[in-house]
Amino acid sequence: MSRTGEFAAIAAHFRPLAKATPAARNLADDAALLATSPDQDLVLTTDALVAGVHFMMDHGAEAIAAKGLRVNLSDLAAMGAEPVGYLLAVSLPDSIDDDWLAAFARSLARDQERFAIGLLGGDTTRTPGPLTIVITAIGRVANGTALRRNGARLGDRLYVSGTIGDAGLALHIGKDERFEPIWRQALNERLLHPTPRLALGLGLRGLATAALDISDGLIADIDHICSESGVGAVVERDAVPLSDAARQCLSRSADLWPAIVSGGDDYELAFTIPPARAGEVALLSEKLGLALTEIGLLVAGDRTRITDAAGREITQKSRGYRHF
Amino acid sequence: MSRTGEFAAIAAHFRPLAKATPAARNLADDAALLATSPDQDLVLTTDALVAGVHFMMDHGAEAIAAKGLRVNLSDLAAMGAEPVGYLLAVSLPDSIDDDWLAAFARSLARDQERFAIGLLGGDTTRTPGPLTIVITAIGRVANGTALRRNGARLGDRLYVSGTIGDAGLALHIGKDERFEPIWRQALNERLLHPTPRLALGLGLRGLATAALDISDGLIADIDHICSESGVGAVVERDAVPLSDAARQCLSRSADLWPAIVSGGDDYELAFTIPPARAGEVALLSEKLGLALTEIGLLVAGDRTRITDAAGREITQKSRGYRHF
Repeated sequence: MSRTGEFAAIAAHFRPLAKATPAARNLADDAALLATSPDQDLVLTTDALVAGVHFMMDHGAEAIAAKGLRVNLSDLAAMGAEPVGYLLAVSLPDSIDDDWLAAFARSLARDQERFAIGLLGGDTTRTPGPLTIVITAIGRVANGTALRRNGARLGDRLYVSGTIGDAGLALHIGKDERFEPIWRQALNERLLHPTPRLALGLGLRGLATAALDISDGLIADIDHICSESGVGAVVERDAVPLSDAARQCLSRSADLWPAIVSGGDDYELAFTIPPARAGEVALLSEKLGLALTEIGLLVAGDRTRITDAAGREITQKSRGYRHF
Repeated sequence: MSRTGEFAAIAAHFRPLAKATPAARNLADDAALLATSPDQDLVLTTDALVAGVHFMMDHGAEAIAAKGLRVNLSDLAAMGAEPVGYLLAVSLPDSIDDDWLAAFARSLARDQERFAIGLLGGDTTRTPGPLTIVITAIGRVANGTALRRNGARLGDRLYVSGTIGDAGLALHIGKDERFEPIWRQALNERLLHPTPRLALGLGLRGLATAALDISDGLIADIDHICSESGVGAVVERDAVPLSDAARQCLSRSADLWPAIVSGGDDYELAFTIPPARAGEVALLSEKLGLALTEIGLLVAGDRTRITDAAGREITQKSRGYRHF
């Protein structure tokens, strides 16, 4: 690439375009917040998924549709928004046939029902390139209650939902036969069918001081909270919650840790909580039937350090996927 | 293509996804209308532009950015909405460098100022395919005043703004040296820098019974009004307003008419007016300094017929570009 990294591209070129738009909030959060009525804000987010980059065509129409929609709903979850609907722009290569489109639409229909949303509009075009799916999701949130990335404070505790690293391991391990098919399948399922944590996002309003969804990788995303909030973070590696499949794989190869803490695509939420309110997190976890695990602490600094059980920093070569 | 046409694809696969969403209004208009407050609706539209399909890379970053943004603003104009902002999802091939991105962003910045809008959010990804730009534009309109496609009535007069066919001629003529460079340049400028008719859209609220922007081609787009309103239309070909450049080209080759009435990309508005209110259109034209020309009449039927000066129907091979 001739660019110096995609973060540099946005910082240099696109961020100034949002400078005069309060709703864009300097492109610092997962979505824009548009004040549309005296008591409600609209939340807007857009994500592009390109075949060969964000998914493989052999994942099939059903999984591709689900992923396209859910990664956008995950951005709404990260803001604490209730989803309303979405717009769909698909650029179709000639290889896509009617059966494929039918399966794609069936999958969207199922997820529309599951997440109580509807298609608002769209555009279909042909492309000589790979299948490209751009979804713009719209949500709503009571005025001033949206979750942000910039409210974390020194001493806040750092939590994540669910388990971390499954999607990153699925990508890293691929078809490596050192790992049993049943584990690989479980990891792959998490990669193909992420679960937007919408109910958690709603529950964190008024409780979390900062939140985002883990799409770029655990470390890279906590770095976003650090830079927007002006704090540092310490993550205790052994506190990071792992699935059975991830534990099984780790038991075969300890060098999978980087894929766990730097691989993206988990779409769990990471959030920060004032220490006095940790009890409310436990209650929320129980109510939702969803593990919410404390993995670290906010400290003075400007980035995320990951430590072993003895408190020694573990060096990471890569911090995760960098994008706009 | 293995599909039976892109309209068939949407009708069969995507329209049912919008069935339960009143805001999508059956995907029948240029944009979705979302009720967000007691007195205002939000207008949402998304358009994908693919290099090699909707624009050529040698048009340059500046024109590509302007076109991507303006075709979306044109959809807002067609609804009578005031633009608020936009989200931008760009998929960049490796050939795009920093200079190109800088020129692209400069062009967006100029248009943001010109149209009083801001960037709300976005996503940048890499693609192994062609540059793909998806913009989602957001506008607002007072409750219940949005222009629609379905309100045209028998006897209404049919108008268009500006001149028709310039962009279609630019595409059709290309570098054909039978036509003088100065005319080709004028036509090409219209193709590369369409003007969203935002002030006209605002002025038509409460006046036009139906409206849309001419993106697929004059006949194809008036057909949309016919099918949504349950009427037919007669367009008198010699009443269609032409630019000087288009007239000059026509004087060299009469077989350019199909490119004029079926070529798309003009982004003028077509709209229908009750006969008793024609005087108000003349006043609006004067106020805006923009030609608004009566080109036909709504009649019983279900499609658009185009006639010569003697009232005889002229047969069209193609009605225009068909898309979702």
